[in-house]
Amino acid sequence: MGERLIVIGGVAAGMSAASQAKRRNKDLEVVVFERDPHISYGACGIPYYLGDVIKDPNSLLVLPLEKARKERGIDVRINHEVVELDAKNKKVKVLNKEENKEFEMEFDRLVYTTGASPIRLNVPGGELENIFYLRTLKDGLRIKQFLVEEKPRKAVLVGAGFIGLEVAENLKRIGLDVTVIELLPHALGTMDPDISKIATDEMEKNGVKFLFETKVEGFEGEDGKVKRVITNNGTVEADFVLVGIGVKPNVELAKEAGIELGETGAIKTNDYLRTNFHYIFAAGDCAEYKHRITGKPAFVPLALNANRSGRYAGANAAFDRDVEKFPGTLGSAVAKLFGVEIARTGLSTVEAERAGIDFESVVITDHTQAGYYPTKEKITVKLLAEKPSGRLIGAMLAGGKGTGLRIDVLATALHNNMTIKELSEIDLAYAPPFAPTWDPILIAANVGKKKFR
Amino acid sequence: MGERLIVIGGVAAGMSAASQAKRRNKDLEVVVFERDPHISYGACGIPYYLGDVIKDPNSLLVLPLEKARKERGIDVRINHEVVELDAKNKKVKVLNKEENKEFEMEFDRLVYTTGASPIRLNVPGGELENIFYLRTLKDGLRIKQFLVEEKPRKAVLVGAGFIGLEVAENLKRIGLDVTVIELLPHALGTMDPDISKIATDEMEKNGVKFLFETKVEGFEGEDGKVKRVITNNGTVEADFVLVGIGVKPNVELAKEAGIELGETGAIKTNDYLRTNFHYIFAAGDCAEYKHRITGKPAFVPLALNANRSGRYAGANAAFDRDVEKFPGTLGSAVAKLFGVEIARTGLSTVEAERAGIDFESVVITDHTQAGYYPTKEKITVKLLAEKPSGRLIGAMLAGGKGTGLRIDVLATALHNNMTIKELSEIDLAYAPPFAPTWDPILIAANVGKKKFR
Repeated sequence: MGERLIVIGGVAAGMSAASQAKRRNKDLEVVVFERDPHISYGACGIPYYLGDVIKDPNSLLVLPLEKARKERGIDVRINHEVVELDAKNKKVKVLNKEENKEFEMEFDRLVYTTGASPIRLNVPGGELENIFYLRTLKDGLRIKQFLVEEKPRKAVLVGAGFIGLEVAENLKRIGLDVTVIELLPHALGTMDPDISKIATDEMEKNGVKFLFETKVEGFEGEDGKVKRVITNNGTVEADFVLVGIGVKPNVELAKEAGIELGETGAIKTNDYLRTNFHYIFAAGDCAEYKHRITGKPAFVPLALNANRSGRYAGANAAFDRDVEKFPGTLGSAVAKLFGVEIARTGLSTVEAERAGIDFESVVITDHTQAGYYPTKEKITVKLLAEKPSGRLIGAMLAGGKGTGLRIDVLATALHNNMTIKELSEIDLAYAPPFAPTWDPILIAANVGKKKFR
Repeated sequence: MGERLIVIGGVAAGMSAASQAKRRNKDLEVVVFERDPHISYGACGIPYYLGDVIKDPNSLLVLPLEKARKERGIDVRINHEVVELDAKNKKVKVLNKEENKEFEMEFDRLVYTTGASPIRLNVPGGELENIFYLRTLKDGLRIKQFLVEEKPRKAVLVGAGFIGLEVAENLKRIGLDVTVIELLPHALGTMDPDISKIATDEMEKNGVKFLFETKVEGFEGEDGKVKRVITNNGTVEADFVLVGIGVKPNVELAKEAGIELGETGAIKTNDYLRTNFHYIFAAGDCAEYKHRITGKPAFVPLALNANRSGRYAGANAAFDRDVEKFPGTLGSAVAKLFGVEIARTGLSTVEAERAGIDFESVVITDHTQAGYYPTKEKITVKLLAEKPSGRLIGAMLAGGKGTGLRIDVLATALHNNMTIKELSEIDLAYAPPFAPTWDPILIAANVGKKKFR
């Protein structure tokens, strides 16, 4: 009898793990249980589907079910929910939701990729209709149907995270009145306020309203449908509310099975993504991994991290041995918000302080293209470097076209533990349509390195 | 008496050196002699000035003369040509071209930044009018005047280097008929043919004609003006010819002064950009520097390298001591040619072979944005990695919007001596408008690393 790998969850991490394990071990039976009807979709595309940038939701299905089954040889079962995990005896109980039947299956190894769920806003009126949470493609389809059928006019987004702001832009694009309510004094909690302000200023210019330092205290409705958002700063009319105040890892099943959680509340993993049961791996948004800068576990529910960790978990679960050490996360993220691109990697000021790191920061504003090139736009670069070594620990960017992609240079620099002086020494490419002779990154490094002499 | 630094040449390297030296040593007298009327201009902007993208040539003057003099305290003398360099006795003879007077000046240290000159095409008819070479802003202004006043209709560019192709695009944009003649079977000699072809295909689609493997044997004219280009493959009509077949370092003065040249024919420098006279430095396009990948001297006449080397030479010339080691060059370059962006860093296949390096290469084609994002375009990534270590030694990119800036990620990877496997491990940022979940760079690294298992 061959060995069997069970993967719980069939989206980013799950399908990456399944595909990688099968690629490395053709003889392995790989079974994926996904409780929703969709596998492996581009969740990050959903805001653009809501905004009609992406017309066909099927285009979001990056790995069609049949391809996963036939070409990759993975036994994918959709609408199948794992309801019990017996970690010690290596078996799961599964509910086939189509036939409403339960069955059991044994495994040799298991990859746990149940993702994360939106944190619910528990306030009076929270149960009203037309208050949505967005996480899965199913959520996205439901919201889109609502937008098309009910034609709401006044949208309130609760929470100003990356996805919230992307949705705000997209709703504005299709003509809605959009208000974003955020508890913090600024948007994008994982970014420094001086940088995130560049994006929210741009959004305000484009008609999106922001209420910062504002707490949602409840909702009021008519005929069971939401009509007003009640805050400590007054009432906002709304016929559509989307709550995006963060996510929490889906760990219930794991916890019951005796799988250890980490300090972040997500599943604890080692460098090979194994849990405390060495034959059970965790990956994606339900797990925590080593942060490359702090060296400590971090909960970073981002798409590439889900795919990456899934791939590494799959590699190590293919046979019964460690093969690929997970390189850790930098929390790199990027977004386009109207004409502004905003990006981050490594630690923000708050994160660095929380990690107890002594550091200096530098902020410069320059241009995305040569100063004499007519389509040049502003770009702001912020670098954080540890004292006294000068090792880069974080970077943030905001500015016009060509800003966002530059974050990957900084992610590569952080990955290599470069100092701010070393960053200033790289021979970057130059031509007028792409950068000033000294790229803004080099300018920031040249200015910043003086603080470390 | 204070010390005096003389800088020969006042463009990219020269003004960088002068500014850096003065910044570090306020008491240093810094005198710059520039034989042309312009200092510190954006030479790379000239093609765009010819193509009317940049309207005002004054915008190319990045450091106005008065600012250099007053704010930076540099004694800049334009239209002053150094006609003799007495390296042993530390003095120069200078011709004031405005007053046609010669004078002598002594120095304590000197930075030699005389740049490079176009290689002339010595064929019959080469002396005809309307055959141009483009190197300095003076050249650019002359060509622009010719374009405006004479309204030529048929342009022939001899040589398909980066600048030649940029000029070709710009001339096409303002309505000229454009033919590019190139001796090699492909454009961009420092790139691999499979990558450069993506750019030239795009240019052909936009109406630029190419004659590859074609040798210009002479020119024919009427009334002293060029009318025909004679090649081994027939005759091409032309009322405007621009020759761009490469540049050679301006080393005559240095050679006469006993300054040693390197194997490339440019001035030999050490890690601190000193020549064989320890108080004479060389920087910019007249000098050769260490290539970071081969560790050997290379002649890489590119704008950022000129600025970089100038800055390092200036830092070391500020006082009589070594302070900043030049980090070497990667030969990073990028260009936009109609809708295609093309870029390179490190070694091409030919360069790697010439350097005697055993290597593998990988080429992948994917998208610049998420596969479901409507404005996505194709991008091709080629990576070269040394055997058996897997150390990256070169990278080339060609594709749509968002391609060019990605080369800086690869330059940063090469700068850090990353292996192709390490490259695959970086936590790059992802959002649908910027990249597929796995950036094309990661895809190339993931595919390529399999060759090194």
